[in-house]
Amino acid sequence: MSSGPLRIVVLLFPRVTQLDFTGPAQVFSKFPNSEVHLAWHDLEPVTTDAGWCIVPTTTLDDCPQADVLFVPGGAGAFDLFEDPKALDFLRLQAKKARWITSVCTGSFTLAAAGLLTGYRATSHWASLRMLEHFGVEPTSERVVRDRNRITGAGVTSGIDFAFTLAAELFGDDEARKIQLAIEYDPEPPFDHGSPNKADPETVKNIIAATENLRMATVLTASALATAQHSA
Amino acid sequence: MSSGPLRIVVLLFPRVTQLDFTGPAQVFSKFPNSEVHLAWHDLEPVTTDAGWCIVPTTTLDDCPQADVLFVPGGAGAFDLFEDPKALDFLRLQAKKARWITSVCTGSFTLAAAGLLTGYRATSHWASLRMLEHFGVEPTSERVVRDRNRITGAGVTSGIDFAFTLAAELFGDDEARKIQLAIEYDPEPPFDHGSPNKADPETVKNIIAATENLRMATVLTASALATAQHSA
Repeated sequence: MSSGPLRIVVLLFPRVTQLDFTGPAQVFSKFPNSEVHLAWHDLEPVTTDAGWCIVPTTTLDDCPQADVLFVPGGAGAFDLFEDPKALDFLRLQAKKARWITSVCTGSFTLAAAGLLTGYRATSHWASLRMLEHFGVEPTSERVVRDRNRITGAGVTSGIDFAFTLAAELFGDDEARKIQLAIEYDPEPPFDHGSPNKADPETVKNIIAATENLRMATVLTASALATAQHSA
Repeated sequence: MSSGPLRIVVLLFPRVTQLDFTGPAQVFSKFPNSEVHLAWHDLEPVTTDAGWCIVPTTTLDDCPQADVLFVPGGAGAFDLFEDPKALDFLRLQAKKARWITSVCTGSFTLAAAGLLTGYRATSHWASLRMLEHFGVEPTSERVVRDRNRITGAGVTSGIDFAFTLAAELFGDDEARKIQLAIEYDPEPPFDHGSPNKADPETVKNIIAATENLRMATVLTASALATAQHSA
């Protein structure tokens, strides 16, 4: 761990699901004595899944060492399978990071970098099962902690993930203070936010469509990760 | 209402509490046949409360007519009291908007533009009481609807607000589909997200500190809004 302020490093990339990052980021922004760095290849605005852009604050080359390494998800998380520099960045940062974390399909990027092999982890429910191809144990919980890996499930679970991390880093009282500050007392007007609460046939079809779209990419990346691990 | 896609216009401004906007924005991004426009004076990146920047997609001058007008909150929402062009933009947009909406202290900006006079509305709990100075009826609920005004309480309530709006615009089934897609099945690790759940003395002190910080600004703006209304 570095001395001085706690450093949270977020890998920001095109086609990120913005709330995977911006949900936790609101909690991070209330952490005492902390810095958040948004790292990407360059400093040009990055287009999120919502169409509008967020501006990185540092480059992969210039980014300081993370205490907390964080990878959000989205379609772009799979594009990173073919970005050796981004995967190397994660591997290098992970060596000295205190916590290695993700939300949603960000766990696939960590997995492709070999950083979840032998760990329990979660992801967006529609993709979760495919994690097994990386030697990860897919775990259907909203926030999964295994040693120093903390992974969150789909999108909005990032907020619950961030409070779990807050409590770990600063204690329960500090986490509660932040919860009050951002009025996190959810009242979803519907109760349909988990595959357990949805029509089973619909859920099955979405999982099948997701695996149909991503499986080839996942299998290629897992083969590469395995080869690199053996090399 | 304009023809063609549904247009959501977000007033984006410096020192916006980013999750006030990015929470709803994730839901908006799943709306069928819709566009989201982030409007500000110019197209330079806008610094959020979290320190990093979001890039506006249009200017106040070039922004198309909103079907849904949306104002997030944050410290910057109070700075807008002294930005006649931004307030005029809201007034002009509001004339033809189908829904006029806010999250967190964004309701203060709407109120300063005279757009909540005589309405029930909510805001972040620490600021809520001050809404009465604008002739608004402060209403302590997570999402408040009064005619075509929908306001959300503090920060994370924006997600609940957005699902309320989704159901209104596209029906309950569509809202439920989006809820499943973004796995909105919250499991806060603590139950401390509402002033009702916190220590009363702490709550009282935070409200006092907030009113101490903002009251003069609020009273000046409310006097201006009243004068303009009478003129």
